[in-house]
Amino acid sequence: MSKSLAIRGDRLDVDFEAIREAARRIEPCIHRTPVLTSRYFNELLGAEVYFKCENFQRTGAFKIRGACNAVLSLDDEQASRGVVTHSSGNHGQAMALAAKMRGIKATVVMPRNAMAVKLAAVEGYGAQVVLCDPGEVSRQAAADEVIRQTNATLIHSYNDPHIVAGQATACLELIEEAGPLDLILAPLGGGGLLSGTALAAKVMCPDALVIGVEPAGADDALRSLEAGRILPSVSPRTIADGLLMPLGDLTFKIIRKQVSAVVIVDDDAIIDAMRRVWQRMKVVIEPSAATAAAALVQARMETSHKRIGVIFSGGNVDLDKLPW
Amino acid sequence: MSKSLAIRGDRLDVDFEAIREAARRIEPCIHRTPVLTSRYFNELLGAEVYFKCENFQRTGAFKIRGACNAVLSLDDEQASRGVVTHSSGNHGQAMALAAKMRGIKATVVMPRNAMAVKLAAVEGYGAQVVLCDPGEVSRQAAADEVIRQTNATLIHSYNDPHIVAGQATACLELIEEAGPLDLILAPLGGGGLLSGTALAAKVMCPDALVIGVEPAGADDALRSLEAGRILPSVSPRTIADGLLMPLGDLTFKIIRKQVSAVVIVDDDAIIDAMRRVWQRMKVVIEPSAATAAAALVQARMETSHKRIGVIFSGGNVDLDKLPW
Repeated sequence: MSKSLAIRGDRLDVDFEAIREAARRIEPCIHRTPVLTSRYFNELLGAEVYFKCENFQRTGAFKIRGACNAVLSLDDEQASRGVVTHSSGNHGQAMALAAKMRGIKATVVMPRNAMAVKLAAVEGYGAQVVLCDPGEVSRQAAADEVIRQTNATLIHSYNDPHIVAGQATACLELIEEAGPLDLILAPLGGGGLLSGTALAAKVMCPDALVIGVEPAGADDALRSLEAGRILPSVSPRTIADGLLMPLGDLTFKIIRKQVSAVVIVDDDAIIDAMRRVWQRMKVVIEPSAATAAAALVQARMETSHKRIGVIFSGGNVDLDKLPW
Repeated sequence: MSKSLAIRGDRLDVDFEAIREAARRIEPCIHRTPVLTSRYFNELLGAEVYFKCENFQRTGAFKIRGACNAVLSLDDEQASRGVVTHSSGNHGQAMALAAKMRGIKATVVMPRNAMAVKLAAVEGYGAQVVLCDPGEVSRQAAADEVIRQTNATLIHSYNDPHIVAGQATACLELIEEAGPLDLILAPLGGGGLLSGTALAAKVMCPDALVIGVEPAGADDALRSLEAGRILPSVSPRTIADGLLMPLGDLTFKIIRKQVSAVVIVDDDAIIDAMRRVWQRMKVVIEPSAATAAAALVQARMETSHKRIGVIFSGGNVDLDKLPW
């Protein structure tokens, strides 16, 4: 199921110094999350697997890394005008907390059909929520209106160099702790985490293969990379609800150049992997975070004797609606 | 709900040197489990709480510590005859694995109504399972019969100095990592973990209060301590199925002398705490392990500004039958 992608020579907007800077900048605001190993997965795969547990991160997901880096990179004048973003998920909470830590105003545009618990979480961090109709056009219009009124800075959830540099720090820490890796897997949605992962890996262990894992029901990134242009994510259907967004031009460019392959996993494989992780490792991960483990378990990749890094991207699940 | 217990001057069968020896002996066979902190619980309690994650331990529970210490303490002649124990739960798996690691034979007596998954786990580690009718008398008769046939050494799941010394190493590691603590809480069933916890704490931070937490539906230990003699655990009913056993004479003696108080929590409080831990800390703990957190959340203990240690004793749950 693994497909190799052509690697081209485009210019990057995020260099390694930007990642190092991000790590220094956000260090007081985030957790340095643990890297866990599992005898069960090691024996199953005949490999050494290192799981970077961003499910233990503040707000329950890696998103706080990019959000903090973006918010802390604003100059004082920009910061005084506040920030705005649109997100129905983990990025909204992360932006709300990052803004709260800097003491500035945040507005999060959310669709009316967003889960009440996510809305409450964003408001709980002190951000203002603006509801809009579902869909890209309404969302953008609502964000534009906030900007018109407040002159706030828009911070996109992944198509932003500061966000990418922030997300890259998870892989930076993983390699610092686990040592050189042969293979690194990260979930692939809008591509912020995967872009950052690939950029960090490229410098810290240049021989590592970096693999993005995408749900079969939202495989627009693989199709985009094959087509050589960004295709929209049309009516995506997957349990991995953090991976529904299309690539952005920044993440498309980085992934095209730096990522070795994209692997597709279906929802059954995601649920199976999620359950194995809960049962055997005793850690709660969300479906999006289980994609990388699913690729290892199901996709018959060559893992034998390899040193493998996996990013558990988050752990925000509804305990009343488990998928098994 | 907290009740203080008289402390008396009985002689102990487990001294600190035995705990240090156990730590050295079992070190190659166990995980040094992480100690996690949680901003959520710290803010909720106004305290600093350190959670010793024995749910991440091999076999999913602290029991492997005592089992390894007991099995590795046998001389070669004893070892050659094998070991026998009775257990329907985590101790059986732990003994099976400990015996496997030493390369000796283990027999585990289990009631016919034990969960199939637990039986399979014990057999999966290579132990022989002998089924018996439920109840103390049948269980003892079945174990006696194994001993008669094989001359194997019986290793009780908690009323054994090597077991207690082994379980004590969890608290030893907790204090090594967290530093001095004001308050340490452990679940209370047969008393092996709590006894060991109290003995380790007594030397490593003598001013700490050590609290045992017992489910309301199996409160025989509190009643025993109040009565001054071991009362049986008659028809216990609680979701904390690892805490059904009565005290043994060794654990009774140690707990009576060393433990500051026993706190009772009901099943609703246990389920609530378990869910908070899964939701907020993203770690899977079993109901028995949630008792200590339940005591903190529900029992209105004085926690403000305290440094608190909590032992998460295990994480073996049936993901198809969650209690919420």
